[in-house]
Amino acid sequence: MSLENVAAGLRNEDGIATVIGVLRQRFGDRVQTGETLRAQHAHTTTYIPGQLPDAVIYPESAEEISVIVRACADHRVPVIPYGTGTSLEGHINAPHGGISVDTTRLNRVLEVNAEDLDCTVEPGVTREQLNTHLRDTGLFFPIDPGANASIGGMTATRASGTNAVRYGTMRDNVIAVSAITASGEEIRTARRARKSSAGYDLTRLFVGSEGTLGVLTSVTLRLQGIPQAISGGVCPFPSVEAACNAVIHTIQMGIPVARIELLDALQMKACNAYSNLGNPEVPALFLEFHGTEAGVAEQAALFGEIAAECGGGEFRWTTNPEQRTELWKARHNAYWASFTLRPGAKGISTDVCVPISRLAECVSATQEDIAATGLVAPIVGHAGDGNFHVLVLLDADNPAEVAAAESFVGRLNERALAMDGTCTGEHGIGQGKRPYLEKEMGGAIQVMREIKRALDPLNIMNPGKIFSFDR
Amino acid sequence: MSLENVAAGLRNEDGIATVIGVLRQRFGDRVQTGETLRAQHAHTTTYIPGQLPDAVIYPESAEEISVIVRACADHRVPVIPYGTGTSLEGHINAPHGGISVDTTRLNRVLEVNAEDLDCTVEPGVTREQLNTHLRDTGLFFPIDPGANASIGGMTATRASGTNAVRYGTMRDNVIAVSAITASGEEIRTARRARKSSAGYDLTRLFVGSEGTLGVLTSVTLRLQGIPQAISGGVCPFPSVEAACNAVIHTIQMGIPVARIELLDALQMKACNAYSNLGNPEVPALFLEFHGTEAGVAEQAALFGEIAAECGGGEFRWTTNPEQRTELWKARHNAYWASFTLRPGAKGISTDVCVPISRLAECVSATQEDIAATGLVAPIVGHAGDGNFHVLVLLDADNPAEVAAAESFVGRLNERALAMDGTCTGEHGIGQGKRPYLEKEMGGAIQVMREIKRALDPLNIMNPGKIFSFDR
Repeated sequence: MSLENVAAGLRNEDGIATVIGVLRQRFGDRVQTGETLRAQHAHTTTYIPGQLPDAVIYPESAEEISVIVRACADHRVPVIPYGTGTSLEGHINAPHGGISVDTTRLNRVLEVNAEDLDCTVEPGVTREQLNTHLRDTGLFFPIDPGANASIGGMTATRASGTNAVRYGTMRDNVIAVSAITASGEEIRTARRARKSSAGYDLTRLFVGSEGTLGVLTSVTLRLQGIPQAISGGVCPFPSVEAACNAVIHTIQMGIPVARIELLDALQMKACNAYSNLGNPEVPALFLEFHGTEAGVAEQAALFGEIAAECGGGEFRWTTNPEQRTELWKARHNAYWASFTLRPGAKGISTDVCVPISRLAECVSATQEDIAATGLVAPIVGHAGDGNFHVLVLLDADNPAEVAAAESFVGRLNERALAMDGTCTGEHGIGQGKRPYLEKEMGGAIQVMREIKRALDPLNIMNPGKIFSFDR
Repeated sequence: MSLENVAAGLRNEDGIATVIGVLRQRFGDRVQTGETLRAQHAHTTTYIPGQLPDAVIYPESAEEISVIVRACADHRVPVIPYGTGTSLEGHINAPHGGISVDTTRLNRVLEVNAEDLDCTVEPGVTREQLNTHLRDTGLFFPIDPGANASIGGMTATRASGTNAVRYGTMRDNVIAVSAITASGEEIRTARRARKSSAGYDLTRLFVGSEGTLGVLTSVTLRLQGIPQAISGGVCPFPSVEAACNAVIHTIQMGIPVARIELLDALQMKACNAYSNLGNPEVPALFLEFHGTEAGVAEQAALFGEIAAECGGGEFRWTTNPEQRTELWKARHNAYWASFTLRPGAKGISTDVCVPISRLAECVSATQEDIAATGLVAPIVGHAGDGNFHVLVLLDADNPAEVAAAESFVGRLNERALAMDGTCTGEHGIGQGKRPYLEKEMGGAIQVMREIKRALDPLNIMNPGKIFSFDR
């Protein structure tokens, strides 16, 4: 993956040194410059090399973030917002150096409005922390990208995950944000009403903007009532096509599946090995239904009929929580199970998303590409959304393998775009997907650049992410 | 309502004359300048005085819209996109003159992808036309703002309506748009995938931008499967508070109501008179459920229990289509029925939206205000969203009445904002709500202005809407 070189000329050395001094005066030892800590803050879970920030700072309030941004603006130094560091496309790297703004200490749940099914949290609150906080209210926050990410990070990358098919993505579940813009001012994008047609949708503009337009200081989220009943199950299919046909019929019939996950045969094999399971090593769909007792039973029965019509095997399902966990074990452990296919390998996780009518074709062509390239790469898909992940297992020290994986990722993206899909369903652009975004958006990327230029004319907010942009 | 005066200095007379000449050469008699036609294109269903465009033009393709926009940009002449003219806040007025771009002839359904539950249409397609087109597919487009509006207009104003509580608003149902920007280029904001985290959410930026960022040339919409069963019913309540409590419990329990509409006692009285009905003249909720036969029965039974707990009267409901239409007659005819309260009056329709926990308080305080002001003004609410409409019936030729109504609308908006609500749930800002948007957004309105300035530096795209903005 060719990232732009970190040319020395793009680092504002004087500004960086000055800002660190200014911030130290105000924040004392909440400004840290040790290399280990800085490396942790540039850590990415991808193969993209780490690019360290020059300092890490721990603000404790929106006002403090404003002070930091103003100082960085005065001296033209990059500001890189940091949540939990679980993003996948180099979002937290500092290609031009700068200050990593760690939001860990902004971790208060500011309010929960149970009657309105909403809450407002600081950006450093993690999704598990929020759901623990909500435990006694009968409500929960559904979005689950896998990692225990921060709400700020999930908002910034427009995260989603397994139950987006039912509850939507962060796009649909953020009611409003507050943010410090590049000029250091705090804005709030909306009130708490469930809908509004009041002017430009600034909330949606900030959701998915990857820290390039401001630093989030609070996020107001939509919550859901905990369903009365949950049922879950698993169903094998003779082929990816058969499984995808079952998904299409399920969505078309309007069955409100909470999750509908596809694992390919290789992934099923890995899960059997990892958890000592006896699942058939063929493509499988894992489902979950939320509703009333009668509702989830009806949904499961309807899906069972669809699966049978599509050539699926027995649909085993249950409302018993322990049995459900057992049935879902393969899906839950899929990521870690993958590494049994190649112990010691590094995993590159990449995602694309296509219209669901093209999902079977896209997954099958990708499997053929994997075989032809000689890669080991299981596939897991959020099939109801047409979104799937390929985990390429490689020896990161073998340049030929890395090159083969990179060219495979390139073809995967071209394939998705050719099917009117997107180069990323939920990971975001960061650094890794920038070339594909150019292809996906055509002239519209210029509109994105004009917005960026208008709101961050000095290009200090997380520069080098989403698109290239000269200062 | 004090609109800015149409100062002669803001009209670019030379440019307008030149552009009309240029467009006539290219478009012949598809450029019209007759006063009656121009007046129809400035017609608004509000009390805001009409401000006529200088010409109306009928393009037949995206390329032709590009030609028009480029000509207007060359001569700095306003471009006012026109759908069906059913907007409520002066969106299609031409305060600085300019060219009304009537999209009536852009009325093709470009594609329907039944397997993906999406379609792409030109902006002049109306929602009824689309649903007629979809009749044989088993799919429908749910958003229903009442009027048979164009999809382009509904997109531009972020429309919603009675079933937004179930299916969302245009924000949630537009997958992508194509638009001619102020520079005359066509962009497309997204591909057809159901979700994406690929860069800034330009789709959501255009949805609700009221023609101020570009002219839409196509809209890709999410469709829904026609539900297997629909049940509907009506339930009287002793008070607005009791009705709103039932709404809150219904939403909190996660009952997926398709519609849940509140009519106040005055509105019920008007409906009885208009349709010769015998409904009790107390607040009532009108409900509709979509799902399987068993599902809609279960939902209705659950709601009946909630209503009883909240002090409601008998919940009459049915799955029989004719009986359902009969039960819903009061709601369907509510707008026209209102005029029986004051025959010959003009109606000012205004809307606000608050968190649902504040809905009862907001409606009750508004009823008291109506009484204290001496107005005749029934209330209808999309209660599940916290959104309600007040239809003020007045003698538009009586300046004292108009002034009283205007100050009432001002207090209504202040009240909604004080409850963390919005000055418009679904009508948009246009000209009428501009002062309230300033109050609602605070400093964030400056971000909107910066985006506008970046994307339309000459301010030719529907100027004078959403916010004031000097050229």
